[in-house]
Amino acid sequence: MEISTPDGDGFRPLDEKSLVEYIKATPPLLAKLGGTVDNLHVKEVGDGNLNFVYIVVAPSGSLVIKQALPYIRSIGESWPMTKERAYFEAAALRIHGRLCPAHVPQVYHFDHAMSLIGMRYLEPPHIVLRKGLIAGVEYPLLAQHMAEYMSRTLFYTSLLYTTTTEHKRAVTEFCGNADMIRHTGQVVFSDPYKVSQYNRWTSPYLDRDAEAVRQDNFLKLEVAQLKSMFCERAQALIHGDLHTGSVMATQVSTQVIDPEFAFYGPMGFDMGAFLGNLILSFFAQDGHANQGNDRKAHKKWILRTIEETWNLFYQKFMALWNENKDGPGEAHLPTIYNNTDVLQLVQANFMGDLFHDSLGFGAAKMIRRIVGVAHVEDFESIYDASKRADCERKALNFAKMLMKERRKFTSTTEVVLAIQEVDS
Amino acid sequence: MEISTPDGDGFRPLDEKSLVEYIKATPPLLAKLGGTVDNLHVKEVGDGNLNFVYIVVAPSGSLVIKQALPYIRSIGESWPMTKERAYFEAAALRIHGRLCPAHVPQVYHFDHAMSLIGMRYLEPPHIVLRKGLIAGVEYPLLAQHMAEYMSRTLFYTSLLYTTTTEHKRAVTEFCGNADMIRHTGQVVFSDPYKVSQYNRWTSPYLDRDAEAVRQDNFLKLEVAQLKSMFCERAQALIHGDLHTGSVMATQVSTQVIDPEFAFYGPMGFDMGAFLGNLILSFFAQDGHANQGNDRKAHKKWILRTIEETWNLFYQKFMALWNENKDGPGEAHLPTIYNNTDVLQLVQANFMGDLFHDSLGFGAAKMIRRIVGVAHVEDFESIYDASKRADCERKALNFAKMLMKERRKFTSTTEVVLAIQEVDS
Repeated sequence: MEISTPDGDGFRPLDEKSLVEYIKATPPLLAKLGGTVDNLHVKEVGDGNLNFVYIVVAPSGSLVIKQALPYIRSIGESWPMTKERAYFEAAALRIHGRLCPAHVPQVYHFDHAMSLIGMRYLEPPHIVLRKGLIAGVEYPLLAQHMAEYMSRTLFYTSLLYTTTTEHKRAVTEFCGNADMIRHTGQVVFSDPYKVSQYNRWTSPYLDRDAEAVRQDNFLKLEVAQLKSMFCERAQALIHGDLHTGSVMATQVSTQVIDPEFAFYGPMGFDMGAFLGNLILSFFAQDGHANQGNDRKAHKKWILRTIEETWNLFYQKFMALWNENKDGPGEAHLPTIYNNTDVLQLVQANFMGDLFHDSLGFGAAKMIRRIVGVAHVEDFESIYDASKRADCERKALNFAKMLMKERRKFTSTTEVVLAIQEVDS
Repeated sequence: MEISTPDGDGFRPLDEKSLVEYIKATPPLLAKLGGTVDNLHVKEVGDGNLNFVYIVVAPSGSLVIKQALPYIRSIGESWPMTKERAYFEAAALRIHGRLCPAHVPQVYHFDHAMSLIGMRYLEPPHIVLRKGLIAGVEYPLLAQHMAEYMSRTLFYTSLLYTTTTEHKRAVTEFCGNADMIRHTGQVVFSDPYKVSQYNRWTSPYLDRDAEAVRQDNFLKLEVAQLKSMFCERAQALIHGDLHTGSVMATQVSTQVIDPEFAFYGPMGFDMGAFLGNLILSFFAQDGHANQGNDRKAHKKWILRTIEETWNLFYQKFMALWNENKDGPGEAHLPTIYNNTDVLQLVQANFMGDLFHDSLGFGAAKMIRRIVGVAHVEDFESIYDASKRADCERKALNFAKMLMKERRKFTSTTEVVLAIQEVDS
């Protein structure tokens, strides 16, 4: 992986034409296309909320080029956002990829000055998981793969596995992604709870619901605690934006992309993002039901996936912990945590806290997608606004309850029962 | 403040003679001595556990020179410790000094290559607070001054006052003090709970007590949580070693020195260190009682000081918060926390958590001073080992209870009652 020095002058936004010239002049990219730019097929994919993403397919190879621009693509130059995020995305892809190569696409090339990543093209039938969920597709291996990805990336980058010295070094590096952290802090934990020009919701149906969020003192108390934990707690190298739009999936493959918000933060923020977005998908299903498909089976599958994701994560994470209890991690030295009883006490406590953190962050991620700036296609693609608002309201009420009552839940089975209660 | 570039070759340990040459060649130091090194009185003060400290007094001025060596002075070259700590000490003195000039000595000069700080000499009758407490001296302004110091340094460096961006920048800088953080993590949260060559205690009296600490699973569970918080939570720029040996006091002046362990950590670690060391001092008093002075009045004063330190801190911290609620801090935006009810909810929650953190960290700091590597003069100066062990056992048992039960306490009045119960 080649890393050039950042250079203000060295940056120029590419288009489909200059991209080909760039590839031609960049050996590691050219090699992936069989050494020639003849017969290239280049397509810019408009999905990206933030970046330009080009799919490049040649007769004997393919790749994706992702370039960050110094603002948020979907909003425009009025909302600047550092293009340095490409550096942190490349770094996180590399680190997480080493820890979990099965579920992270390979990086071929990184150009710091150009804020440009060349990486594996996730070929069809890979599609964005969110779109698959909206279409009613089931992914039998999703829970297992996501549990694998989260357990490995979070465990190995935490003090359960690393030394204090290495941990502080890595924390320092990712503190550099401060602009992105600040952005998340604002759109997830602040904007939805105040009047903001960027907030929107399904109006007029949810006008009173949005106002109720802005006037709910107990909700604001909880979100203050979650924001503090998000800003202060460097627990592990988290993806930082692990919703269902950051996952590409097929029936047999699950690939996690877009870690440009990566930093050392609380583990529960990743688990919460994923579970929260599955719950959003669940509540959106009634809006997609029709005479041909009442979506009941799909809803059941989503609930099962929520349960299994946490349960498998729990198993895998604990297995990693037990395998590595005599490893380099300085959180629990083997000479202190030297009997089964104390290790089980510590593990139960750790996992219980992580579960509650995950529910809290999951709830925050749900709320912000209904009354904050960035919405999810799960709801947005329900064209009947009244029907959409009904789905969103159920999700919002569930999320508010979950954030406030999260400490009362002891398992995802209980969470699923609570979802079904709201849904019935 | 002049900061030279660090340079391996530039470092040479000074002695009393070369020190004078150094001062002569360093204008900001020379100026503080009236422009001449004639009639200098130089004295190395052996108090320092870690560093060489020279008091330099001239007819028309004075200063202190502190030089860090690349190992722990009191242990020797067998325990290396980065001399970079001088950089972080100077930085913390400067930042805390700006926030609370009344209680932090002024830095005149910092030489990075030499790991050398030139600073204000705290002239007699300033003595180390710990020594004053052992001697039975009361300090009527101590609680007020320490509350002032802690409230200002902790509030202004937290997200209650700073922006996310500035906070991450500052966190990054102090992550560089990783060696010192790792050292604290080891000696406070690990060594006392395992067999370690450096641990010691009043043997044979406390042999079973020390073993009981190493076998107490519930204590190990609590200390694991405290260690995680210490390593992961970048809440504010803490002093990092705020025991009663890091304070110089007179009846009217209180000066906090030696922040070489400073980093962005949990606020409760500072408050806990100070309160925990006052409690140690309390339990040591019976060992210093004699026919002329039963120390009863002094013990009462210590308990009052514990109560007042927290209570005044609470008042001052809340006053700063209320004054600055519309300030730059991004933890609780005024547009969200926009009514008295919600602000009070958030503040009560924050201060409750900080109180429990302080008790937990305070207990950890007490335990490590009785069965860990570094002991306190409060106990060490009780020459009758059996009497010393009795005092230490009471303190140890109280600390164990406090760590496990800390969440049940709601005020320092309750803590003081619990101390009196153990003492009776």
